[in-house]
Amino acid sequence: MSSSPHPHVAAIGLGTMGEPMAHNLLRAGFPLTVFNRTPSRADALVAAGASWAPSAAAAVAQADRVLVCLPDTPDVRSLFSASGQNLLAQMKRGSVVVDTSTISPRATRELAREAASFGIAWIDAPVSGGPEGAKKGTLAIMCGGEAEAFERALPLLRTLGQSVTYVGGPGHGQIAKATNQVILAGTYQALAEALVMAKKLGADPSRVVQAISGGAARSWVLENRGPNMLRDEYPLGFKVSLHRKDLAIALEEARAAAVAMPLTALVASQEDALIAQGFAEEDVSALGRLTRRAAGLPAGPL
Amino acid sequence: MSSSPHPHVAAIGLGTMGEPMAHNLLRAGFPLTVFNRTPSRADALVAAGASWAPSAAAAVAQADRVLVCLPDTPDVRSLFSASGQNLLAQMKRGSVVVDTSTISPRATRELAREAASFGIAWIDAPVSGGPEGAKKGTLAIMCGGEAEAFERALPLLRTLGQSVTYVGGPGHGQIAKATNQVILAGTYQALAEALVMAKKLGADPSRVVQAISGGAARSWVLENRGPNMLRDEYPLGFKVSLHRKDLAIALEEARAAAVAMPLTALVASQEDALIAQGFAEEDVSALGRLTRRAAGLPAGPL
Repeated sequence: MSSSPHPHVAAIGLGTMGEPMAHNLLRAGFPLTVFNRTPSRADALVAAGASWAPSAAAAVAQADRVLVCLPDTPDVRSLFSASGQNLLAQMKRGSVVVDTSTISPRATRELAREAASFGIAWIDAPVSGGPEGAKKGTLAIMCGGEAEAFERALPLLRTLGQSVTYVGGPGHGQIAKATNQVILAGTYQALAEALVMAKKLGADPSRVVQAISGGAARSWVLENRGPNMLRDEYPLGFKVSLHRKDLAIALEEARAAAVAMPLTALVASQEDALIAQGFAEEDVSALGRLTRRAAGLPAGPL
Repeated sequence: MSSSPHPHVAAIGLGTMGEPMAHNLLRAGFPLTVFNRTPSRADALVAAGASWAPSAAAAVAQADRVLVCLPDTPDVRSLFSASGQNLLAQMKRGSVVVDTSTISPRATRELAREAASFGIAWIDAPVSGGPEGAKKGTLAIMCGGEAEAFERALPLLRTLGQSVTYVGGPGHGQIAKATNQVILAGTYQALAEALVMAKKLGADPSRVVQAISGGAARSWVLENRGPNMLRDEYPLGFKVSLHRKDLAIALEEARAAAVAMPLTALVASQEDALIAQGFAEEDVSALGRLTRRAAGLPAGPL
């Protein structure tokens, strides 16, 4: 038995986001068991004191909290739902799944119901802030689920993020994340069109940005990704392919809820073209690339 | 002869923006002559010490600086160009026109050329910050024109605005303003789609906004106009009709420069519908109204 005052955590999914999150839990003193499809991703964590589990089922069996960080809805479903590995059936009653993946709100509600039938709580807790925020523990975390379970998961959540917000019932964290990604879609695409227009009209886009930065056009995207677009370089950041996946979630939910999102559909189409042109791994600010290509601008700083 | 250390200013156009700007010049000690198509708009200024001119021509005849604040390109052209009242021919050599109207960059370049042929400088100086900023003298001013003339106009510009940026040659201030309006178009529409989606998916949009406000979705629009959309109330702010006019300028310039701006065109179409439905005088954040109507949401707070 562990003498730690912290609940025992199993971390599943040790990618660009999951690995640094797991490190922060270790550092904060949470007893930690880890599992990942590619075992080598766990080496540094094991060296730092985490236990390696040979399977996801072995990882979660004794855990009080299960931290999940996987790419997409099918990944989470295939582990936890009865149609997949059915991990919920192998977990302790009273334990809490904290799913930091960005997945479908509807799938989340289904998983939360399945979990409840096993006496397990499911907190959807998608994050914003990128690998940098995951490393520093400064993520913004948008949470959905039963309020009581959220309270129990709070010490863990506060270790991972700076701004932890309880939005509402099951799936509401995922709804907040989808909202976030829809806003980003429009903000990036508008900035791309605006800067390419300024350039083609003969102005110096850097000076234009300087002139408008203090006013109503001000945004995180303008401040932090405007320089990428001006330089025609798109280092991560957040991958086009992942943002496109998130827009697919938003558009699918919107269709089910009878909401027309013409701008979101447009940006999704721009990102499809960008991905087909080989830029899936670039930062979302690469939307600027497509707009400048369409306008016949050569590569290079604007 | 005036003993003021300031150059003599003529202010033409005393609307919601022009009138408070003229007041700030008076307060700062600029000798001021004013003209407006509707004379009653000048009453308070005349009471405060401005001279009333019976015509635009009479207003500009002895002025060292001519401050212009009119609604649209044809208004400015009809006063200053040879095909209109030809005011430039009646102004002092060495004087400077400071045009704070938001008009076409191309028309601005033509007017600047016409002005130069009379020995007059033309500074395009469109502003951002609304009636509130005009009153407080806190406008952001984006300037184009000859650098030497910009320097001469600077004491006047600094009286009107807090952030005065020289962007580049003739029309470059207008290009910056068009850039600003394109960015706003996407930011407003994305926010509208995002909040309506969140509502229709069953989340509390206020809590969603709270959850995402600290992250990458952060913007002036989210902070300052998100609450309008949540309340379904759209007080000014900046009129839909004026933003639509500015998008027309951007789209016309973009077409001439062979730039595809699909998002801007989409938002322009949304604003057309909004105007046709009778909401031209509301704040641009009323784009939220159209999206919620399309989604079948009843009026009232989200």
